[in-house]
Order: sequence, then structure tokens, then C-alpha cells
Amino acid sequence: MKDTATVTAAMLAIGDELLSGRTKDKNIGHLADLLTLSGIDLKEVRIVADEEDAIVEALNALRSRYDYVFTSGGIGPTHDDITADSISRAFGLPCIHDPAAMTLLAEMYKRREMEFTEARQRMARMPQGAKHIPNPVSTAPGFIVENVYVMAGVPQVFQAMVDNILPMLKTGAKMLSRAIPCPYGEGDIGMLLAAIQKTHPDTSIGSYPKYDGQRFSTELIVRARESQALDAAARAIEDMIADLRKRNTAANPSPDA
Amino acid sequence: MKDTATVTAAMLAIGDELLSGRTKDKNIGHLADLLTLSGIDLKEVRIVADEEDAIVEALNALRSRYDYVFTSGGIGPTHDDITADSISRAFGLPCIHDPAAMTLLAEMYKRREMEFTEARQRMARMPQGAKHIPNPVSTAPGFIVENVYVMAGVPQVFQAMVDNILPMLKTGAKMLSRAIPCPYGEGDIGMLLAAIQKTHPDTSIGSYPKYDGQRFSTELIVRARESQALDAAARAIEDMIADLRKRNTAANPSPDA
Repeated sequence: MKDTATVTAAMLAIGDELLSGRTKDKNIGHLADLLTLSGIDLKEVRIVADEEDAIVEALNALRSRYDYVFTSGGIGPTHDDITADSISRAFGLPCIHDPAAMTLLAEMYKRREMEFTEARQRMARMPQGAKHIPNPVSTAPGFIVENVYVMAGVPQVFQAMVDNILPMLKTGAKMLSRAIPCPYGEGDIGMLLAAIQKTHPDTSIGSYPKYDGQRFSTELIVRARESQALDAAARAIEDMIADLRKRNTAANPSPDA
Repeated sequence: MKDTATVTAAMLAIGDELLSGRTKDKNIGHLADLLTLSGIDLKEVRIVADEEDAIVEALNALRSRYDYVFTSGGIGPTHDDITADSISRAFGLPCIHDPAAMTLLAEMYKRREMEFTEARQRMARMPQGAKHIPNPVSTAPGFIVENVYVMAGVPQVFQAMVDNILPMLKTGAKMLSRAIPCPYGEGDIGMLLAAIQKTHPDTSIGSYPKYDGQRFSTELIVRARESQALDAAARAIEDMIADLRKRNTAANPSPDA
């Protein structure tokens, strides 16, 4: 596949609850969908525990390797929310109570006639000089340091923050894709498909077995950055399926992969 | 938290479709649940694309660091299934058509009166000397090399394989946990909770904001390997909540985090 104008990204999901199974992550799939639509290639995801060393190490590995890193989780007011400290350490910056965030939060709590407790003040902490990511749901902002976008773990808040940052991001040539359902199992089409992939190097052809409890079929996905290349590969696949039907060499959808 | 008898694990989920958003992963949460029940600490998860370098690098990082690594995806019969090759390369082993797997698959296809195509034979490939993980759903086995367990990505097959390997694994002292629902937002309890965590160092207290679209509440999770420690911390948290109710300093559940 051509490497022109690709923009790459990684996601770092932070939280013991994701690793214990108590919470089933919803943010990875959501971000993946939106980045794909935007022409940004999500290349890697890591999930780590609420442990400073683990967060710092993963963040430093990812931020040097990809154009963008998006994190979720660990920016609330409790003792186990250590993302702001960890990101600060990764960048060698002091972790401060950001004055603008303090003002935002103080005003919000005043309006609601609630005490702006020390715990709540923790939500204004971020690396010195970080930019805010607005949080229309619950006010406490996410933040941006260089190519790292730090967001909340609660899906409603994460999603609102993602909506706010997407328009700021540089995007690559959008990846086009086409899904072609195939009634044959992968075992029937594997070699034919490999040959098609070989003659269409500007595309990426993915084969995804489906299993309904009784038998396998296949969904074929062609991806390319140029529509001509996409069309050509898709046509070759459709011809392959038509040909198999005609030859009837695999007349019955296979019960195997 | 005490570090006695912990057994650690990582998961490596392999597949472009997870990173494009086309497939929403179901295996991570499933494995996380079962490992937690077994007393094995899942410490890290990575999701990488169907790219050999990415798989090899992630696998080598994880297998040297944790007691077990569990992988999902990329062991089917098509050209984009490159997990067997990648695992072989990571271990410096030749990737061969395993004779016992060839026999298993050949017999299954004979029984079903289907051709044992070159593509289907790809599913017998694994690093030389690898042990099988039985696959009661669709026959093609997963495999084990040292501390790495390689399984299918299709959730029904992944789950059946996990069921087969769990009894083989050494397990640690089981992590006990208790959930305590808390009607107060994290901002009301953050500092009190931090103090409780400090006086109960043999436990890990997690605080998880819940947001129902209108207001936040909190679920508190105490985890410990010893029931006495668990009970003591849970009691301290319940006392804290009762105390807040009595003092009525935060009579209404907070609309904030």
C-alpha cells in the first residue's frame, strides 16, 4: 500500500478496571471508528494499569513512534487517578493546578452551590503549559501536551472530548474500503485471494471469517487510498466469487474456516 | 499490596480489523474476567496490526516481562493470517506444517468430504515443537510455545481455546474484591478515600465514577488477597459513607465527578 500522506496514531487506555474485566472498554472501538473515518491510521493500542511506571513507559514508547497518542482514563479526583502526574513525568514537566482550569471548576461549583473540595481541585492538575480539551459534560478539561491528547475514561466524557479534538487534527489521505460478503469459507478462497492481493499491491485485502455457531462464511474487506485501485481489486474478488459459483467447486458454503 | 504468589499475564490481540473499528474486540474483556477469577493478574494488553514486525516486537516485549502471554487472531487460512510466522520468528524457530495438526485437519476434511486445500493446510502451520491448544469448534488447533498461548480471533473459538488452557496454568493467590456503591461523587469523597487507602496498604481501592447522563455517582472497589484486609478496608469505606449521610455535608448526590 502506498505510504503517501499517512497520519498515524496510538491509543493508551489507562485503568485497573479494564484489566480486571470489571469494566469492558468502549472507548477503543469508538476512537478507532472515528480515526478511520478521518483518515488517521490507528496503529497500536495499549491498555495499562493505574501504575505510574507502566503509564510513563507506554506513553514514551508510543509518543515517539506515532503522530498522535490519545489516552483515556485516570483524570478524575481520587487517589487512583494518576494520569496527570504520569504524563507530566513522561514529559519532564511539573504537574500543577492549572490556573484556567481552577477558574473553570471554581465557577462551575459556585454556580451549583457545591464546595470546591481539595479532591475536586485535583481535576485541574495537568502538566505546566498544557492546552485544554473542553469537557461539555462535566467541565473538568482534558489536556494536550505536544502530540499527546489526554481524555477521560467515562465514555460519555471521552466521546465529547474526542468530538472536540477531531477538527484540530491533521488527517491523511482517507482510507477507502469496501466490504464484499463471500459465502465460501476461507479454506476455499485462501490461495485465490492471496494471488489477488499479490496483483493489487496498492490495496490491503482482509479476510474475516464469520461463524454463526454452525458454519463459517467470510467477509472480505478491500482497503485502498485510491478509488481506482479499490475498484480493480474489488472487481477481481467479485469475479473470483462468481467463478467459484459457476465452477461449483465449492458449491456449499464450507462448515470450516 | 503484598506481592506474594502473584502470577502475571499480558494479552496481545492481533488484527487490522480491531484497529480500523470494523470489529469491536470481545476477547480482551472475556480473558480479563477469567484470569481475574483464576488469580492471574492481567497487567497489560496490546492491540497490533497484521504486520510481522509489529507482532514480533510486541510479543518479545511481553513474553520477557510477564509469566504468560495470550494472543488472539491471525491463525486462519488466508494470506493476512501471519501470526504463526510472526511467533516463529519471535522465537527463532522454523514455521512448519505440524504433522499432528495436518493429520487432525486431513481427517476432519475427509469426514466432511471436503478438499484439504493448500489454504486449509496453512492452518496446520506453527513453530516447530509447539504444543497444541485443542479447538473443539473448528478443529484447527491453537498452539503453545514456552509461555506464549496462541489462539484464534473468532470469539467462539477463542473462548473454547481459553477454556482448554485455563486448567494448565499456574495461578496466584486469588484476588478478592468487593464492590461498594456510593451515592456521592468522587469530588465529595476523594480525600477521605485517599486517607483510607493510606491506612490499608494491603488493599487496592479503586473509585469508578458512574454517569447516567445527568449525575455522577461512584462505585468503589476494594481488592485484596487476604479477606481480613479486605473486610477492614470495606468497613472503613462503609463507615465513611454512613458518616457522610449523617453529617449531610453532601446530602445530594453530586452532579459532577
